[in-house]
Amino acid sequence: MSSELEVLEERKRIVEEQEERLKIKMGKIGHKIAVISGKGGVGKSAVTVNLAVAFAVNGYRVGILDADIHGPSVPKMLGLSGRRLEVGPPGIFPVVGPFKIRVVSMDFLLPDENAPIIWRGPLKMAALRQLLSDIVWGELDLMLIDLPPGTGDEPLSIAQLLPEMDGVIIVTIPSEVSQIVVKKAVNFARTLGLPIIGVIENMSGFICPNCGAKIDIFQSGGGEKIAKEMEIPFLGKIPIDQRICEDSDRGKPFIIEHRDSPASKALMEIVQKIERFLNQKENKGGEK
Amino acid sequence: MSSELEVLEERKRIVEEQEERLKIKMGKIGHKIAVISGKGGVGKSAVTVNLAVAFAVNGYRVGILDADIHGPSVPKMLGLSGRRLEVGPPGIFPVVGPFKIRVVSMDFLLPDENAPIIWRGPLKMAALRQLLSDIVWGELDLMLIDLPPGTGDEPLSIAQLLPEMDGVIIVTIPSEVSQIVVKKAVNFARTLGLPIIGVIENMSGFICPNCGAKIDIFQSGGGEKIAKEMEIPFLGKIPIDQRICEDSDRGKPFIIEHRDSPASKALMEIVQKIERFLNQKENKGGEK
Repeated sequence: MSSELEVLEERKRIVEEQEERLKIKMGKIGHKIAVISGKGGVGKSAVTVNLAVAFAVNGYRVGILDADIHGPSVPKMLGLSGRRLEVGPPGIFPVVGPFKIRVVSMDFLLPDENAPIIWRGPLKMAALRQLLSDIVWGELDLMLIDLPPGTGDEPLSIAQLLPEMDGVIIVTIPSEVSQIVVKKAVNFARTLGLPIIGVIENMSGFICPNCGAKIDIFQSGGGEKIAKEMEIPFLGKIPIDQRICEDSDRGKPFIIEHRDSPASKALMEIVQKIERFLNQKENKGGEK
Repeated sequence: MSSELEVLEERKRIVEEQEERLKIKMGKIGHKIAVISGKGGVGKSAVTVNLAVAFAVNGYRVGILDADIHGPSVPKMLGLSGRRLEVGPPGIFPVVGPFKIRVVSMDFLLPDENAPIIWRGPLKMAALRQLLSDIVWGELDLMLIDLPPGTGDEPLSIAQLLPEMDGVIIVTIPSEVSQIVVKKAVNFARTLGLPIIGVIENMSGFICPNCGAKIDIFQSGGGEKIAKEMEIPFLGKIPIDQRICEDSDRGKPFIIEHRDSPASKALMEIVQKIERFLNQKENKGGEK
């Protein structure tokens, strides 16, 4: 019995030490924003990647933590598939991607891209806490955290691992079915005590590149409506553009490849609104 | 210490009893098929609902178990939002929807559609096992189980709760980023020891309703390609149709509302392939 107690004491000590290291290592990051969605497939990762690139182009030192354990897609979207994290004396170094964006993703740790990670709850969080506490981010102005979709155990536990986030961005598509899950995401953020920076309505309408007709494939205006209803800021609508998917598949940032597209312009306006939020917080990280 | 042991013994007895009841209650169901996706937002629930309606129209007695705890959307898509499960002496009765489809969804149990279910792992599974063991499905030819998206704890644990499924249908969108997650879904099904009935490529290309131009919004052919690569059956491509989203939001089955559309025809062909799979299994449920 006493040896059991010793083991528990030892584990507790390790966890406390990891949390302390995590706090120190993430302390040099000016702002930390979590990107969440009530459900998957709304383009959360593509939005995260393009926002990160836009901030980097604006002069920010940017990091992305791709915390989606089961479907990490940030590396592929930035052309970093197959890269590995490097380990040195101070810890684990992020992969440096385009525009010097520092990226950490579960994808870099998987032996084989086909393998599903069937990690069970407690083990998963322990592994993730360990990993996070070992990463040497260095000085960053902004970190975007791509949380797993949904309002379940996983995003909750991961969000709880991370110290002092500035706020949460919620990505949705406009359909009514999706509005229900946005409400859940809003309540989820509130449960965590995090301010909501705003809602982004992604895949909002489609302009036929051939004839210019506007077709609302996933309806339109649902994100704006729900933001108004829930009394949270609305950050903007990003229209569907088939080149976003193409560019994501090719590992090229859409916002650079097609900077004059309506979708890129919408993204840039969203970036301005996020900057305004960060500047209002008067924290050190927004200084550019 | 001995009272602790008694509590554990009691819990074990309850779990065994529930599993026994579950086996009996689901024993009158001819075929059980899980619908999964490596990631969310690929239209898994819309595909499930439309397949269920198609089977029901073909004369099958159909049930849907909407096992997506965090984003149950089947009730809304069948116009059953706000309905409640009724409890009688033999247990809990499914809600009877259009075409006599019997539906059980977590959505029927939630006090408020805005509430996120932040249930932690063990409690969640215990609650779900209890619920499932109490449901009086009656005689059914086919049950479609809408599992939560992803390859994580939740779909794994839920799939493990359900006895003797016939197989798994994987829904994906065509993009390359999604192909990676399909591979995970395939491996996930194999880990569970379940046969893969096939892959459905949803949101496969878009025909502009104004000019007829074909635009591959989420690319095209990726589902078929990955099926070939993984040597699993390919069930078919369902094109994007903005009316699928509209109908889902209105709670009307698309396959009935627009039965002559290319998407409905694709769904009907997929149904035939699934029927062939079930008939080959020579089990009692496929007799219609």
